[in-house]
Amino acid sequence: MISKLAIVGGTHGNEFTGIYLLKKWQRELSLIERSSFSIETLFANPNAYSENKRYVDHDLNRCFEQAQLEDDSLDSKEQVRAKEINELLGPKGNPRVDFIIDLHTTTSNMGPTLLLTKKGTFYNQLAAYVTQKMPQVIVSCDEDHKANSEHHFLSSIAMDSVMVEVGPVPQSVLRQDVFEQSEEMTMHILDFIELYNNNQVPQLPETVSAYRFIESITLPLNEDGSRNGMIHKDIQDKDFTAIKTGQPLFTTFDGEVICYEGEKTLYGSFINEAAYYDNNLAMSLLEKITLHTYSD
Amino acid sequence: MISKLAIVGGTHGNEFTGIYLLKKWQRELSLIERSSFSIETLFANPNAYSENKRYVDHDLNRCFEQAQLEDDSLDSKEQVRAKEINELLGPKGNPRVDFIIDLHTTTSNMGPTLLLTKKGTFYNQLAAYVTQKMPQVIVSCDEDHKANSEHHFLSSIAMDSVMVEVGPVPQSVLRQDVFEQSEEMTMHILDFIELYNNNQVPQLPETVSAYRFIESITLPLNEDGSRNGMIHKDIQDKDFTAIKTGQPLFTTFDGEVICYEGEKTLYGSFINEAAYYDNNLAMSLLEKITLHTYSD
Repeated sequence: MISKLAIVGGTHGNEFTGIYLLKKWQRELSLIERSSFSIETLFANPNAYSENKRYVDHDLNRCFEQAQLEDDSLDSKEQVRAKEINELLGPKGNPRVDFIIDLHTTTSNMGPTLLLTKKGTFYNQLAAYVTQKMPQVIVSCDEDHKANSEHHFLSSIAMDSVMVEVGPVPQSVLRQDVFEQSEEMTMHILDFIELYNNNQVPQLPETVSAYRFIESITLPLNEDGSRNGMIHKDIQDKDFTAIKTGQPLFTTFDGEVICYEGEKTLYGSFINEAAYYDNNLAMSLLEKITLHTYSD
Repeated sequence: MISKLAIVGGTHGNEFTGIYLLKKWQRELSLIERSSFSIETLFANPNAYSENKRYVDHDLNRCFEQAQLEDDSLDSKEQVRAKEINELLGPKGNPRVDFIIDLHTTTSNMGPTLLLTKKGTFYNQLAAYVTQKMPQVIVSCDEDHKANSEHHFLSSIAMDSVMVEVGPVPQSVLRQDVFEQSEEMTMHILDFIELYNNNQVPQLPETVSAYRFIESITLPLNEDGSRNGMIHKDIQDKDFTAIKTGQPLFTTFDGEVICYEGEKTLYGSFINEAAYYDNNLAMSLLEKITLHTYSD
């Protein structure tokens, strides 16, 4: 039973879609209210929004490990805000809120993506329901093998959570298509939880195709750490498309092409995501998996 | 005769394409060298690049009016940098450099656009040459009716200049396609100037289709000045496509659709450009014009 649910937007200050969806729903709460749970909204990083940046000092969505939350010496803008949010929605480990939906966007061509952060039948059924209602949704699993306390995402405050991740949209831009896809996916998640709470989940497809995170790969770098190349145009915008041996991944500024040398077919996500340049990350690599709706 | 030419990149710190093109050319100067003029490169706003922002205090590309350059009381990061650049390439009015190519990108779907800031046969022939070599280039004219001294663009330091404006690319991202289009267009501009200097401009088409800036329009706003809507999805990505009476322009967050009410068919550019949110600008409106290659 999920009794208390929070929808979070603006965890990253330049991802406008979630921020404006919250404004819309705050004006018309009936859009997100359901009978079996209470709902609240949280604008996570208004400081970063004011500065029109992803974050002021640190990425807020990497500040929620238990050890970070307990460390009083961590006092940057986001580290302090993380502790405030942990008090508002948590505390992590014994949280007031049962479920968090965290709204994100990406500059990558990921379409409407449902990011699952945990394994289990509940999540598999949620994925089956959302993709049945909205077939263009892609399910991506990043169930950390670590304990929940070691997760660094904001959404890990609650015992259960998902992230709504939609693109492509540039940072600091609202696109109506991305806005509407984010809203529609959120509505289906709320509807599923309502059905789940009322033991009214309908018969669902037995399996759902999904992708599971394996590793991130970095851009080509010079010896001094500066970037020496960019995403190859042949894989730009090809999120969730098969990457086979020999697939061009990068082109250096000298014109050299660097290809995928692995033997296993993988799939990319967050390809050329603007925010990942901070760490010179080029993309995530995933494997294709099947979720079973009626078993873990 | 154009004797001294400067290529400027990074006037906006989060438009990475120009910055990385300059790095490439600095390593291999022969790519941009021509026999009839000297060439130099300038990274205009490294401070903003370090902060991964368009600008630190003020938009550098709005700091070059003569009155601003002469006002010692203007001492923000960009106002000071504008005076430095004016010393390096100018001074405006009697500049050391004859021609500036300023490299920009946009989040709007403008393709490779050649922005002309002045009228004249030279510019019309340049446009004809570049579009002959690279037919996907769009020519956009923003010849201010003001005197050159009142122009606020960096490129107005020189008596003659163009801007290379390519999109769509998110801020703080390199896309290989945009990188290559920007490089190719710059090469054609350099080649044309070489031919012009040597009196070897070939026979060109007599006319070139182009667009001329008329006005900017703003996003729908609430009474308190906050944004009340976004670009309608029907016009998103439709830069340089005809806008006729009744064309949906905006959708408010309440779902109201706001349409174009003018009678004259116009065309949009910079539709939903991220950087224009600062001033709540939604897009530029332009009229279609014909440039005559052998008369002004």
